[in-house]
Amino acid sequence: MTILDKINSPQDVKELTVEEMETLASEIRNGILTRVNAIGGHLGPDLGIVEATIALHKVFNSPVDKFVFDVSHQCYPHKMLTGRKAGFTNPLENLEISGYFNPEESEHDTFIIGHTSTSVSLATGVAKARDLKGENYNVIALIGDGSLSGGEAFEGLNNASVLGSNIIIIVNDNEMSIAKNQGGLYENLNLLRETNGKAELNYFKTFGFDYYYVENGNDIEDLIEVFESVKDTNKPTVVHIHTLKGKGYKPAEINKEWGHWSLPHILDEKSETSSQSEDYNTITTNYILEKQKQDKTVIAITPATPGATGFGQDFRDALGKNYTDVGIAEEHAVAYSSALAKNGAKPILAIISSFIQRTYDQLSQDLALNNSPATILVNWGTIMEMDVTHLGSFDIPLISNIPNIVYLAPTCKEEYLKMLDYAVEQTEHPVVIRVPYGEVISSNKKDETDYSVLNKYEITENGSEVAIIGLGNFYHLGKKVKEVLKAENINATLINPKFITGIDEELLNKLKENHKLVITLEDGCLDGGFGEKISRFYGNSDMKVLNFGGDKEFTDRVPLKVLYEKYHLTPELIVADCKKCL
Amino acid sequence: MTILDKINSPQDVKELTVEEMETLASEIRNGILTRVNAIGGHLGPDLGIVEATIALHKVFNSPVDKFVFDVSHQCYPHKMLTGRKAGFTNPLENLEISGYFNPEESEHDTFIIGHTSTSVSLATGVAKARDLKGENYNVIALIGDGSLSGGEAFEGLNNASVLGSNIIIIVNDNEMSIAKNQGGLYENLNLLRETNGKAELNYFKTFGFDYYYVENGNDIEDLIEVFESVKDTNKPTVVHIHTLKGKGYKPAEINKEWGHWSLPHILDEKSETSSQSEDYNTITTNYILEKQKQDKTVIAITPATPGATGFGQDFRDALGKNYTDVGIAEEHAVAYSSALAKNGAKPILAIISSFIQRTYDQLSQDLALNNSPATILVNWGTIMEMDVTHLGSFDIPLISNIPNIVYLAPTCKEEYLKMLDYAVEQTEHPVVIRVPYGEVISSNKKDETDYSVLNKYEITENGSEVAIIGLGNFYHLGKKVKEVLKAENINATLINPKFITGIDEELLNKLKENHKLVITLEDGCLDGGFGEKISRFYGNSDMKVLNFGGDKEFTDRVPLKVLYEKYHLTPELIVADCKKCL
Repeated sequence: MTILDKINSPQDVKELTVEEMETLASEIRNGILTRVNAIGGHLGPDLGIVEATIALHKVFNSPVDKFVFDVSHQCYPHKMLTGRKAGFTNPLENLEISGYFNPEESEHDTFIIGHTSTSVSLATGVAKARDLKGENYNVIALIGDGSLSGGEAFEGLNNASVLGSNIIIIVNDNEMSIAKNQGGLYENLNLLRETNGKAELNYFKTFGFDYYYVENGNDIEDLIEVFESVKDTNKPTVVHIHTLKGKGYKPAEINKEWGHWSLPHILDEKSETSSQSEDYNTITTNYILEKQKQDKTVIAITPATPGATGFGQDFRDALGKNYTDVGIAEEHAVAYSSALAKNGAKPILAIISSFIQRTYDQLSQDLALNNSPATILVNWGTIMEMDVTHLGSFDIPLISNIPNIVYLAPTCKEEYLKMLDYAVEQTEHPVVIRVPYGEVISSNKKDETDYSVLNKYEITENGSEVAIIGLGNFYHLGKKVKEVLKAENINATLINPKFITGIDEELLNKLKENHKLVITLEDGCLDGGFGEKISRFYGNSDMKVLNFGGDKEFTDRVPLKVLYEKYHLTPELIVADCKKCL
Repeated sequence: MTILDKINSPQDVKELTVEEMETLASEIRNGILTRVNAIGGHLGPDLGIVEATIALHKVFNSPVDKFVFDVSHQCYPHKMLTGRKAGFTNPLENLEISGYFNPEESEHDTFIIGHTSTSVSLATGVAKARDLKGENYNVIALIGDGSLSGGEAFEGLNNASVLGSNIIIIVNDNEMSIAKNQGGLYENLNLLRETNGKAELNYFKTFGFDYYYVENGNDIEDLIEVFESVKDTNKPTVVHIHTLKGKGYKPAEINKEWGHWSLPHILDEKSETSSQSEDYNTITTNYILEKQKQDKTVIAITPATPGATGFGQDFRDALGKNYTDVGIAEEHAVAYSSALAKNGAKPILAIISSFIQRTYDQLSQDLALNNSPATILVNWGTIMEMDVTHLGSFDIPLISNIPNIVYLAPTCKEEYLKMLDYAVEQTEHPVVIRVPYGEVISSNKKDETDYSVLNKYEITENGSEVAIIGLGNFYHLGKKVKEVLKAENINATLINPKFITGIDEELLNKLKENHKLVITLEDGCLDGGFGEKISRFYGNSDMKVLNFGGDKEFTDRVPLKVLYEKYHLTPELIVADCKKCL
């Protein structure tokens, strides 16, 4: 019987000796590896935080004391100590436990959390609620993995520091973000590490926090000692712990960026697999590399997610000073891109759909209001089977209702490349491109469209009665719908709108001549999206309109097939709906 | 002839002696007061920055050197030195010059700027573009007035500090935000002021900036000396200057919050006028004060704009620890509110429509995803004659397409109070209320609606043929439309939808029985808004739908009458459009 076998709640951790806790740490690491090997997931962050999590549960008293884990992708050890170990050790139960904090899973999880830099802000609210209610417990925020560079973390620190009561912020300093840490702040963390926390120049102390440093953040005894000493403090307190990302799994210790997150079968394979086949990321990076050779003002920008958008180490090395990783700082990434473009450079910012949510005001004020001709690529904009915190369904409502932005939806490689080049070379508009999701599709013919003529849709197949407007990824769904309609003896028109942010009034009016029904297909949330604008356009006419897309809802790892059935996003269901209107 | 008479460009400033510059400072102050007295505007921030602006133009070489002014409401002296003095000294020309940075007005303005905390981020992009192009000039960001507490400013500092080349950040420390500064960071600024910049614990140095301090930031000679010493630096540099907000106008020096911004006629009246008549702000504050007496967990929150939402000094004093000003930190304000609500307190966050744009991701991830029952009040949500940076047209598309949020639109005092109480007392949903804009309207009857039954619209007047759905502020426009239709012998149905975030399918279906046309009226941008969802709903039916509201565009101080004509938002224009459909 292992130690872990005996742990069913944090209470059980409190009974253990330090030696037993060290054994437990190694069992937890096995659990993490077992899970990641089976279903993929966050590896390095979780391996690094094992000892700290054990020590936190030894010292504090969850759920009376409240933990808020930033990003929450470092919560695997916490989950294993709070009744959910089967989600790690038993491959059959892996999928029943999510990779993020979730109060629906356990009372030991305080919030659903998935985006970074939120923990200190949230914990400040928890602590203030406690104070207003006259209650008495510890509130502990765990922040790390580069999250300190996000604006919300700073705003939280600035306010937590004047709370005037108990709040304990554990800074998990593993020297890394997903990729390398970026920004001057991290020099200060270096200095603090080098001086064993003693340097007078101390980011946390500038706010007024009580400050503690633990050099070996993977030493359970050291951690327990410090946690005991700050427990029940009545002052805002920072405990800065120096941990090793990936600890206990050599490949992840050595290559920390690679080990941050892993696909399944990490243990089964000898080395990092890097697929050589073309995908939309390689198309992007090849384009940028080629362009930058011709133009020294081309610059690629990432907000700390270079891997997700294909900005690998070779790419970064090749670009040198024409590459900026701003760290987890999406707001700055957009403002920075805007200013670069406004001053004659050619920035290309690649950002994941779910994270562009962090930049609405910068898109509006810094970028769109200034009509800065920056290029922004939105990746992973699609309805998908994904954790509820990282959905790609909302970028169209978010971006497309901001004035001045040109939001483009390519349907294939050739269009994407043409749009990319248009975006980079033009000087009139902020241009955002929704990078196609999934396998590369080629039209096998060069795209000759002049995208400077805005809002011109393309009729790709002429027909009558029904017109199908298939946006971006869903253009191909539109093609299939056309096929099914053909079997019903309806020769539908197929349209590739290309532009998300505008209406082709001339084309839409012309459709009235010989169409009764227009259907729109978009790969995202319908509310506030593309199709509704078509519905509005036809509101005063006899044209019937059906909008197909996702519901306005948060879905948590729901299989795509289930979502497509629910949203009527299969050709058969769409055609059935059409027939009701004809 | 005054000195100012001779200043037509920054070049003319360079010729002046220090004595002449001091005279110029006083002439500029007169200009500021003349303008603010004539048309209102930002007073204290501009009065405080006069000497620094003169010194900047003396030392640096705009427009070759590039200035980026944060918030840009401290740009009046800059405008007067860059060819736009008539906009201050000549009341007839006041309105031709805006109160904010605008490149369309002058090559000395680098960006359109109106929201806070953006300058360092933008300046970093300007400097990087310069470096990529191999050019050579100074980039100067001016930040102050509490803007440092915003996340984007922090993200900018973190990245500016590792730029590796020239960027000069002037921190205008006037000890104030709009209201008092909030947060631990400002204690560090205190410490730096007290030690004449010598304290080792230094927020700016933690990032690695070269740091300079000017104790008398209203002394032209001192400023020139330091600016000369940092000019052409090749390192990221912070110059921290200590200025007096409101300098030169005693009432604004003494009461800095009051003097931050002023309505016209400040010089004509003896004392601060405080209207005692009821408005929606007093309704809000009276409600909160009353509620808090019964419930110690009720807490009012502002992100540094207490005045704009009626949270005056008496209110703050009465609430004590049940009031939090988080500073300019809208993201934190939302996360903090969410956590308070999730932990059993009753937060009421009041925020201006234009500034809630800074919180999309917090609304989505921290609040909505967690279904935290916080109450958020959106003020100034309306189409208005306003500077392009502070429009109130976009909150409906922004908020209403996020799942789980209940967004309510009251049409009168009684509804507002009922919705407010519902929001505060319920524990199921995040509830946002679009506070009515303008004069208080009373229905003179208590609202008995049960808002926990979501998405139930109310038919307030039964009719046929045409149904008018008038949302929030525009319900009253709907009433007028009904009157005009009546004159055309059309007895329209009038509907108060109350809920922005959902469709009353039952009611809308029922309308099909005896209506041909549904019109929607909303006081904001149509794209992504309320009306389009009604259009979508009726897309497969014979019902005609017309959506009335604002265009997706940025408008800059365009008179409301002009906007209403353009958008067809007068009863006559609406009825004319209706008749085309009937």
